[in-house]
Amino acid sequence: MAKPKPIRVALLGCGTVGTEVVRLLTDQAGDLAARIGAPIELAGIAVRRPNKHREVPEHLLTTDASALVKSDDVDVVVEVIGGIDPTRGLLLEALHNGKSVVTANKALLAEHGSDLFEAADGSGADLYFEAAVAGAIPLLRPLRESLAGDRITRVMGIVNGTTNFILSAMDATGAGYAETLEEASRLGYAEADPTADVDGFDAASKAAILASLAFHTRVTAADVYREGIRQVSAADIAAAKGLGRTVKLLAICERVTSPSGQESVAVRVHPAMIPRTHPLASVNGAFNAVFVEADAAGEMMFYGQGAGGAPTASAVVGDLVAVARNKVASGRGPRESAYAALPAQPMGNTPTRYHISLDVADKAGVLSQVAAVFAEHDVSIAAVRQEGRTEDASLVIVTHAATDAALRSTVDKVGGLPVVRDVVSVMRVEGEE
Amino acid sequence: MAKPKPIRVALLGCGTVGTEVVRLLTDQAGDLAARIGAPIELAGIAVRRPNKHREVPEHLLTTDASALVKSDDVDVVVEVIGGIDPTRGLLLEALHNGKSVVTANKALLAEHGSDLFEAADGSGADLYFEAAVAGAIPLLRPLRESLAGDRITRVMGIVNGTTNFILSAMDATGAGYAETLEEASRLGYAEADPTADVDGFDAASKAAILASLAFHTRVTAADVYREGIRQVSAADIAAAKGLGRTVKLLAICERVTSPSGQESVAVRVHPAMIPRTHPLASVNGAFNAVFVEADAAGEMMFYGQGAGGAPTASAVVGDLVAVARNKVASGRGPRESAYAALPAQPMGNTPTRYHISLDVADKAGVLSQVAAVFAEHDVSIAAVRQEGRTEDASLVIVTHAATDAALRSTVDKVGGLPVVRDVVSVMRVEGEE
Repeated sequence: MAKPKPIRVALLGCGTVGTEVVRLLTDQAGDLAARIGAPIELAGIAVRRPNKHREVPEHLLTTDASALVKSDDVDVVVEVIGGIDPTRGLLLEALHNGKSVVTANKALLAEHGSDLFEAADGSGADLYFEAAVAGAIPLLRPLRESLAGDRITRVMGIVNGTTNFILSAMDATGAGYAETLEEASRLGYAEADPTADVDGFDAASKAAILASLAFHTRVTAADVYREGIRQVSAADIAAAKGLGRTVKLLAICERVTSPSGQESVAVRVHPAMIPRTHPLASVNGAFNAVFVEADAAGEMMFYGQGAGGAPTASAVVGDLVAVARNKVASGRGPRESAYAALPAQPMGNTPTRYHISLDVADKAGVLSQVAAVFAEHDVSIAAVRQEGRTEDASLVIVTHAATDAALRSTVDKVGGLPVVRDVVSVMRVEGEE
Repeated sequence: MAKPKPIRVALLGCGTVGTEVVRLLTDQAGDLAARIGAPIELAGIAVRRPNKHREVPEHLLTTDASALVKSDDVDVVVEVIGGIDPTRGLLLEALHNGKSVVTANKALLAEHGSDLFEAADGSGADLYFEAAVAGAIPLLRPLRESLAGDRITRVMGIVNGTTNFILSAMDATGAGYAETLEEASRLGYAEADPTADVDGFDAASKAAILASLAFHTRVTAADVYREGIRQVSAADIAAAKGLGRTVKLLAICERVTSPSGQESVAVRVHPAMIPRTHPLASVNGAFNAVFVEADAAGEMMFYGQGAGGAPTASAVVGDLVAVARNKVASGRGPRESAYAALPAQPMGNTPTRYHISLDVADKAGVLSQVAAVFAEHDVSIAAVRQEGRTEDASLVIVTHAATDAALRSTVDKVGGLPVVRDVVSVMRVEGEE
């Protein structure tokens, strides 16, 4: 039998993840060749500053990423640079030239996924991106393939390790947000500029990718309602604790059916209180976990490390093996599936539940005044707890589901009542009912 | 564009799972066609007694399964009959004829998997079997594909719903095994003949399949060490509770490296005490959960419904979509990967830890006599608890890891000491250290 032709790989970027990819390709070379039916060979590694990468073979390093992705000597492009530009141009170039792409770039996929898919379709190349969401946890392949025979109704999870680390620490110590962020930065759990994480951009990109796969619809980051964790206070965490709950930044993708039967997709990222008994409540630190609900399969959970060099590299190389196998078999992996093309539901129309904690005057009639505002907005109250102190009282309300717009208006109006001294904490509630 | 040729499917068996498969194929016909790029059509349904299946189209029913799997009109055979014969012959016939096979048949795969894979390879057909292990939970595809770039070291989980229901109930009520089995049968959680479940045969088949995929090695049910739950007593459950543990029937697949560097595969199914804080401890009733550990990816968990008509059908139809997509693209899914061909490690050589609970005479020197037996067998003690009563005392010992053979000999010898009145409970310990 003829010796199988090696699969030639261009690696774009060689930071934490890239270095681990090189290590896996080297350490596991024999195993990977056996699994694929052909050896994997690195054709080149594009980096900005070649003298900074002493841990990879020097002769492979190049600063000319553009030439590398076009090279006839390259079959597959693995991208771990991140960011939108120049990555977008490089990957489009690779795909247009018929080279399959493996990427971990959630921001690019969430903003320009459809361009990439179209380029892949045009040339018959593969586009794989398991590492873009939830690091090493096999999640996108199950959504894209294993559950292809089912109807997914909901995806909900913790998909950002930095914010989960901060919220876990706030819950454990009772400290405030700013102080905990500082600690997270010192420990290396938060970037110098933590915006992408703490303002929910990273989670929103991941939510867009999850929703696209789950609902066979193009969902971009712009379709995702987004609230980060900067506003989460020690008072919010304490209020959650008092109710047997904890606060997590959740990415939630839902299939919503209107009373008239029109389906749409609601995708949102925001902090939420969940019961301490909920499986997501015990997901701490840098771990990720995602619940998936489907009509026939029921409820499933996927749990593991959401980031880090080695876990992300595991997902990248797993995709590379799939792409290489497809190449050996002259086949192709699954393409974009966007046939359902469901409309995005605005956040205001999305049904949610609120927890509201108020400081009120401790006198007769306060509860009835507050309750009247809820009734006026057609928001039904699930639970109330009132505790008197000397001059004022604490009033905690958890609502039933209502549209988010109705809940917001309710909170605004309640906050303006003269008997309400302070709105201590307002937060959405998930994971029960 | 020409209308795509439908994918013609033969369904073998139409019990709980088969009926749900027909329902999904009907209810989701439009979605499935969009996902595949061609419609799925049922070519026939082979059953033993056609008059018993009023819920499926009568004209599709046939008693001649053998003719159906050979029919030129069939592209894919979906098997949900179960059992070894005549299923094995039917699937080999289908594969030899180039028809791809989707099956949920763990017993057949665990005993004759290599025959089926060889037949598939011979004709270039696909063989998919996600539903054979852990029902609807996407687990085999992640092992087979997502983690193909990593080195899996351990797979451990709860893969049998019946035994998990019984053990959960024994833990909740304190009742004995026989009584709880009766209750499980009454509620429909145990079969009239529960042997396959309670003696661990079902879990052993699943463990063999998991180990084969995880370690790229042919592992059959005969390679799996197997102990069921018939011997688990109320005393065992109580002893576990006293130590903050609970008892679960675990399937454990490990890559074991000898001091000389020789790798082997240890696969076992037995009841074990795990800490109540372990994520598997809270997997109750008919749910399944599986932990996977890999070098780069670290620890992952997969959780969901392990059985039942609709969940199993979800996995079957997911596989059917994959096979149909391969057919449309003239491609093929992953084949058997058994290149590593690691030897199976006998249970006696496998490192385990034991919990041993003894009734001993309450007098001086007992602990030293018992401890001497452990030392003699080179078994190191991790924890001891001795509690005096009037005439006798209770002595609880948890060991460090030693070979299972050494631990067994230790228990045998300890049980024969004159100062030991009764060996109350002996059970392996997992999930800590």
